[in-house]
Amino acid sequence: MAHDKRVEHDLVGDMEVPADAYSGVHTVRAVHNFAITGSTIARFPDLIASLAAVKQAAAQANRDLGLLPPDIAEAIISACDEIRSGQLHEQFVVDPVQGGAGTSTNTNANEVIANRALEILGHQRGFYDVIHPLDDVNLGQSTNDVYPTAIRLAMVGSLRKLGDSMKALADAFGVKAEEFGDVLKVGRTQLQDAVPMTLGQEFTTYAVMIEEDRQRLTEAAALLLEPNLGGTAIGTGINGHPRYAELACSYLAGMSGEPVRPANDFIEATQDCGAFVQLSGVLKRVAVKLSKTCNDLRLMSSGPTAGLGEINLPPVQAGSSIMPGKVNPVIPEGEPGRLRGHRQRPDGDDGRRGGPAPLNAFEPVIAYSLLRSLAHLRAACDTLATRCVPGITANREHLHDTVHRSIGLVTALAPHIGYAASTALARRALATGRTIKDLATEAGLLTADQLDAILRPEALTRPFPQPVVTAAPLAT
Amino acid sequence: MAHDKRVEHDLVGDMEVPADAYSGVHTVRAVHNFAITGSTIARFPDLIASLAAVKQAAAQANRDLGLLPPDIAEAIISACDEIRSGQLHEQFVVDPVQGGAGTSTNTNANEVIANRALEILGHQRGFYDVIHPLDDVNLGQSTNDVYPTAIRLAMVGSLRKLGDSMKALADAFGVKAEEFGDVLKVGRTQLQDAVPMTLGQEFTTYAVMIEEDRQRLTEAAALLLEPNLGGTAIGTGINGHPRYAELACSYLAGMSGEPVRPANDFIEATQDCGAFVQLSGVLKRVAVKLSKTCNDLRLMSSGPTAGLGEINLPPVQAGSSIMPGKVNPVIPEGEPGRLRGHRQRPDGDDGRRGGPAPLNAFEPVIAYSLLRSLAHLRAACDTLATRCVPGITANREHLHDTVHRSIGLVTALAPHIGYAASTALARRALATGRTIKDLATEAGLLTADQLDAILRPEALTRPFPQPVVTAAPLAT
Amino acid sequence: MAHDKRVEHDLVGDMEVPADAYSGVHTVRAVHNFAITGSTIARFPDLIASLAAVKQAAAQANRDLGLLPPDIAEAIISACDEIRSGQLHEQFVVDPVQGGAGTSTNTNANEVIANRALEILGHQRGFYDVIHPLDDVNLGQSTNDVYPTAIRLAMVGSLRKLGDSMKALADAFGVKAEEFGDVLKVGRTQLQDAVPMTLGQEFTTYAVMIEEDRQRLTEAAALLLEPNLGGTAIGTGINGHPRYAELACSYLAGMSGEPVRPANDFIEATQDCGAFVQLSGVLKRVAVKLSKTCNDLRLMSSGPTAGLGEINLPPVQAGSSIMPGKVNPVIPEGEPGRLRGHRQRPDGDDGRRGGPAPLNAFEPVIAYSLLRSLAHLRAACDTLATRCVPGITANREHLHDTVHRSIGLVTALAPHIGYAASTALARRALATGRTIKDLATEAGLLTADQLDAILRPEALTRPFPQPVVTAAPLAT
Amino acid sequence: MAHDKRVEHDLVGDMEVPADAYSGVHTVRAVHNFAITGSTIARFPDLIASLAAVKQAAAQANRDLGLLPPDIAEAIISACDEIRSGQLHEQFVVDPVQGGAGTSTNTNANEVIANRALEILGHQRGFYDVIHPLDDVNLGQSTNDVYPTAIRLAMVGSLRKLGDSMKALADAFGVKAEEFGDVLKVGRTQLQDAVPMTLGQEFTTYAVMIEEDRQRLTEAAALLLEPNLGGTAIGTGINGHPRYAELACSYLAGMSGEPVRPANDFIEATQDCGAFVQLSGVLKRVAVKLSKTCNDLRLMSSGPTAGLGEINLPPVQAGSSIMPGKVNPVIPEGEPGRLRGHRQRPDGDDGRRGGPAPLNAFEPVIAYSLLRSLAHLRAACDTLATRCVPGITANREHLHDTVHRSIGLVTALAPHIGYAASTALARRALATGRTIKDLATEAGLLTADQLDAILRPEALTRPFPQPVVTAAPLAT
Repeated sequence: MAHDKRVEHDLVGDMEVPADAYSGVHTVRAVHNFAITGSTIARFPDLIASLAAVKQAAAQANRDLGLLPPDIAEAIISACDEIRSGQLHEQFVVDPVQGGAGTSTNTNANEVIANRALEILGHQRGFYDVIHPLDDVNLGQSTNDVYPTAIRLAMVGSLRKLGDSMKALADAFGVKAEEFGDVLKVGRTQLQDAVPMTLGQEFTTYAVMIEEDRQRLTEAAALLLEPNLGGTAIGTGINGHPRYAELACSYLAGMSGEPVRPANDFIEATQDCGAFVQLSGVLKRVAVKLSKTCNDLRLMSSGPTAGLGEINLPPVQAGSSIMPGKVNPVIPEGEPGRLRGHRQRPDGDDGRRGGPAPLNAFEPVIAYSLLRSLAHLRAACDTLATRCVPGITANREHLHDTVHRSIGLVTALAPHIGYAASTALARRALATGRTIKDLATEAGLLTADQLDAILRPEALTRPFPQPVVTAAPLAT
Repeated sequence: MAHDKRVEHDLVGDMEVPADAYSGVHTVRAVHNFAITGSTIARFPDLIASLAAVKQAAAQANRDLGLLPPDIAEAIISACDEIRSGQLHEQFVVDPVQGGAGTSTNTNANEVIANRALEILGHQRGFYDVIHPLDDVNLGQSTNDVYPTAIRLAMVGSLRKLGDSMKALADAFGVKAEEFGDVLKVGRTQLQDAVPMTLGQEFTTYAVMIEEDRQRLTEAAALLLEPNLGGTAIGTGINGHPRYAELACSYLAGMSGEPVRPANDFIEATQDCGAFVQLSGVLKRVAVKLSKTCNDLRLMSSGPTAGLGEINLPPVQAGSSIMPGKVNPVIPEGEPGRLRGHRQRPDGDDGRRGGPAPLNAFEPVIAYSLLRSLAHLRAACDTLATRCVPGITANREHLHDTVHRSIGLVTALAPHIGYAASTALARRALATGRTIKDLATEAGLLTADQLDAILRPEALTRPFPQPVVTAAPLAT
Repeated sequence: MAHDKRVEHDLVGDMEVPADAYSGVHTVRAVHNFAITGSTIARFPDLIASLAAVKQAAAQANRDLGLLPPDIAEAIISACDEIRSGQLHEQFVVDPVQGGAGTSTNTNANEVIANRALEILGHQRGFYDVIHPLDDVNLGQSTNDVYPTAIRLAMVGSLRKLGDSMKALADAFGVKAEEFGDVLKVGRTQLQDAVPMTLGQEFTTYAVMIEEDRQRLTEAAALLLEPNLGGTAIGTGINGHPRYAELACSYLAGMSGEPVRPANDFIEATQDCGAFVQLSGVLKRVAVKLSKTCNDLRLMSSGPTAGLGEINLPPVQAGSSIMPGKVNPVIPEGEPGRLRGHRQRPDGDDGRRGGPAPLNAFEPVIAYSLLRSLAHLRAACDTLATRCVPGITANREHLHDTVHRSIGLVTALAPHIGYAASTALARRALATGRTIKDLATEAGLLTADQLDAILRPEALTRPFPQPVVTAAPLAT
Repeated sequence: MAHDKRVEHDLVGDMEVPADAYSGVHTVRAVHNFAITGSTIARFPDLIASLAAVKQAAAQANRDLGLLPPDIAEAIISACDEIRSGQLHEQFVVDPVQGGAGTSTNTNANEVIANRALEILGHQRGFYDVIHPLDDVNLGQSTNDVYPTAIRLAMVGSLRKLGDSMKALADAFGVKAEEFGDVLKVGRTQLQDAVPMTLGQEFTTYAVMIEEDRQRLTEAAALLLEPNLGGTAIGTGINGHPRYAELACSYLAGMSGEPVRPANDFIEATQDCGAFVQLSGVLKRVAVKLSKTCNDLRLMSSGPTAGLGEINLPPVQAGSSIMPGKVNPVIPEGEPGRLRGHRQRPDGDDGRRGGPAPLNAFEPVIAYSLLRSLAHLRAACDTLATRCVPGITANREHLHDTVHRSIGLVTALAPHIGYAASTALARRALATGRTIKDLATEAGLLTADQLDAILRPEALTRPFPQPVVTAAPLAT
């Protein structure tokens, strides 16, 4: 064996590892076994940081309980600190999707931390007699409690960031809502002309929707903060110390600033992925709403001549290789593509029904899927908030014109002249191309003054208090 | 025990059955065990007829092989004949979704046929010493070959009917395509104005799409016609006769008029639901296309004032309880609701991964899902073909007007004046509201005659041969 | 016209209606237009009752506001009372899935209530000059606020009932958990033998899971109780009275016993189906868990000889038409079929992205889907709680035997002899077929007394406090 | 401007581009607009090669038709040749998921080819007066015919490779099938013991299934080979030459070796994604089957003590960080994770309903999704074929033992002694733990010789011709 190699051993046999590698035999085998997504767990920095936080909390708890010698504990804690601050992430090389319920992710962490801790203590890497990846770094732990705890924390971290991006997008819509506050337009139901509203009201709605979803995100986070840490292999806590769970969670809470506390029932918590299903539901909700918003923007900006032509999106690139001058709504057209998998997530019968009790073997897939969703949704919000919404303009004249030609105005007359008479009026307007107002005056149903009062924009879109008018007797 | 009861027995114990019931203990227990969909297998007449056909073919084969006495065989055959002609369907009372891989459906058939055959021979129901539901009617059979064979045949029957309805819908679109053959409109891409086409071309497309899907249906049918009949319990053919499969399939082919022949590998065929997945894919394809068509119709008919206003759908009901005169596109709005489950079918990881080999325990769910899809898609085609498409009218003037105001016409100039110059022209037209033709003439890029030749409707929508023009030098 | 007919009119034209029908022209046209699910809205009694409650609350509010004459209001209120108490449900005949965003459901209710109210006042049906379905029963309302309010209330009602059924199922599992509290078994992860647990712990988990899901249901209910009632057509409240929303919601709260209060933003609430997406997520969660539980039961009861053979399900019917004596787990095999559509609901891009703003045109599909899910999940819980769980028995001897032969016991030794030595021990046990205990004693790693202490069942499955032992020095 | 920059222009305005970049303004803007998947189209080499092939075919056709000067055509053809041979792929930098229906992918290709062609002719990049990306490279083309053609060809290429990998996996199962040809085991239905089969038959089934799926893949390829090339913007062929389509397809056929020919109806073909839906269905079918196979392997290898323990998978890594000696089935556990998205693909209501006619704006998402599926499925086959299947061994003794203790053997007796008597026998065997054979002999139902004949393994698993025995009279 050359000097730049060391030999490690596992139940499959011996294996040479580069002497300067922080990871060991378990990691190397896992890299070989799983080349599934083509990426590594390092693509999720929140996950790496959370893994280190869990290992650090475990070392602190074990030190306090007298299970781990103080010097070893301190070395482990220092190594974890470094990782949490962003160092050594490139040593986390296993594929996020893997068989074995996250064992490879956990052993990758155990090996990197053990070797870095050895280094801190002045030892060479691989001197596991001094600090052992499993007996020391993984002391009193199992993949089945460490891994779920780490992914839960990572999700909460990513989720806070998504919340910030949603806030920024809601604000961008809010600015437009104010700008368009006085722009009257025909509100539609079933794509058919209904009654007037303002374009500002339409944009306010987008802002409100996003804010509502943020609230759901916060609720979903709460469910994630009760991990099974301390349940070890299957939730019975085998090989664990009775005070470990409480201690470790309290350290974790301190590090993360989140109210982490042990689950009520470790066995149940080890196999229950209810919190993930819940988060998945909320993310889907966000994805559905963002896609709907994009579709609305595309439809409202359709045209310029043969479409609705209500608003204009800022042009960001030429639209066609054959049609000169064409501009496409590429931003709201691209985002639904990004959101697609998250909107209709194949939420894993696999992932969710898990393998048979008492463990959910498919947590790596769940984690991968949710962490990716969190990142994608955030990017979608950021793109819309910076490259699309602020540049939107309204075609005020066209909108004004359609409101006044629309038969939808007849709805405001119905309380005064009845549904049946109003229907007759509307059909006549449609057949003749004349306005509701003209026809109503001509028929003597209401006076011009009454009509002016009823059809004031404010009366139509902010109808309280209602205009007081005295109607002609009801026509049948 | 009263005179109007008989006692039957199974491994759970004794049970009283009404003396005049055609079904027996197995059916009664199944009815009790499965109240899942709230319906019975009789809701799928094709399934009942196919079950009877399989039982009849089995009796014919067993008779020919000397395994079933001729008089018993003939009584069974007569009973099956009656069921195939539509009688006794109300005796098929088990829920289509059930545990047990279809055993309850099979035993329901075995019991009804045995008792009806007993009756034909002049015996009372329940005298199973003479004709036994399992030893005679089910002779040489297992649920695991009978049931899949019956559902495959039922699907083929339903599929032929769906094909007819699709043909009728394609024809309805074809009629409109001819009617609208000369109506020019702005073709859109990404909802943005692109280049001209005729409304007839748009409707032709719907007809062509549907016809293409019909071809795929026919291909899917072929895969269904190779059942595992004769494979008995797990495909090894245990308790079966070596010549049975060939004989029974040939009788089935005769009865159904379809080229039924035994699968190549019975063990594989017993657990493979590839043909179902394939059919499911085709049905999804049909559902997706029909939904898209409905959505297109809704969009093209949006308005009347503030929408695209290209076509009008026939009004079939008042559209609103508050907005007088409003008419909604309720048919193309309702159909996507019908198609929804079929468009994104959850068809069952359950259904598809099956239980562990060597049997797919979830075939009843698959059958239920696919037979329902077949019926729903057919109803959707029928509704569109009778209540919507024939009454569609075009807003010819509006369409004509938008084509001539659209900047999309500039595309036809690009081969003559270049992409860059055309882009400049288009942007100018958009900014000034003037037409492409005016601006091009004014700029001296092309003469009025050249433009007339290039912009003839036929040149734009049926561009071969191209108009021959001599363009001014390319502008940069 | 015969005496037994009356003529009604809408924008499509005149139509004869049977003189004694409670519903009128709008309902008849809708029945003709939508034959989609083959059922009527009456299949959801909670929906009919909720519709009547909304109409009653509206009449009460309008009366209080002086918008509806007291005698007419009282007649409408009486009619609604009758419907809420279960009468006239058969008059609700439109298909639950329909185009028009629920307009047909709303007009069905308007017509039935108007005609019943006319009758109460001593008039003939159809005398709409006295009480008009739209001008009076629907006064100040739109389908777009009435319908969503009614379906939300209906969902809450159904959801409370589902909660009760879940409670009963959790209790059934709880009873078994106690019964199996002392039955040791091998806990599995990744289907591989892991460490011991009790069968009681396994059944406790099912109870806990279900209870957790009940809590999520309650949270989902809260989001449903803020309807847009008073927003009328598109949320701007056109034709509504400023105090109507508050009043109507307060009457609704009184009738339902639920804390109903107006949404914060009616325009947003009119198009936002976030609460439905959330409910859908929770129902999916319940469906996923129930399916997982069924799959676990099937796996644990596999055998009797060549399977896991851990538990026995109560036999409820014969399992095979060809294999005598076979019993199948038909209940836990049938339920996943029932739950299937709900587990992987095709949650409606249609349904959820809605049509373009500002209305979700596909609410009828959403309502149909969720109300059906609620009913199906409830039935699944009831079936499991009555026909399966109570009859489960344990194969105690077989379970005891496998625990003691399993190499999983070595895990308990690892803290005492290290991971590497334990691995070696386990591999040797597997190769030789000897027990961990024998080999550990023989190797002198621990004494028989130490081993007895470590391997006591209580130590393995309730490990706190840990057994105190003094281990031999760590082997490498 | 520095010497190392050039200025390009589009409708958004001027932009500086590095002088030595092959791509230009359109590509740069697209890179800025779409950072969606985090990858580039270069991750799909088949797509880049196909794009170049289409561009080359177009140049050849345009040259032949006299539309493109020969020297320019030859330069373009040479540039395409280089790209097809694997060069310049790193210049294809736009994100595969993008708004604009593939325009950015097309313009990326146009710019790279134009600049490389300029270079070949000795010009500097950016001298578009000589060779223009749109007027020359894109001559007579639109994104809407070029892009779909290229992705179809890319899919066919990837699909051929997947077929090869499936063949290799089927072969690996075939080898095992032969090795296990004489290993008798209990066949299961519904996870319950059914009747005997050989382990070889089980493995044969996997091979046969995969082979069947390969056939479906070939059929799907055929549908992809009729592109709309020549339809230009919306299928009307605007700005195209009447002989172009035929010529270009024939060149493409020559380059690809696939029978490419023009679609029958270009307008329909431009918006129909039926072929993609079909391919998607087939890929889902493959994914479902592979997942099922993995699940079967996991279940059969469960244990070693408390599971089914029928087969052993080759150990590839340690299974646990806490349980020494544990080995997990990580390969068949990881692959379903890989296959997950492809098994339940959300493939896009978006993707499928497309935007409103006449173009499917979401083709980039479809392409991305399907090309990724093709790559993932191939990797899954390769992994199983190399790292899992060849190392599988059978637990012959355990399997032999369970067959002989199983009550499933009673099925073979039913034709001789009747279903009812057989049921009684089976229940007695189960209650007493004695074998079917013992009890049948003791009861005098059949002689030991008869039983030996009936229960020979060959008789049970290859039952033709059946053993001839004379049974004792039927017992009731």
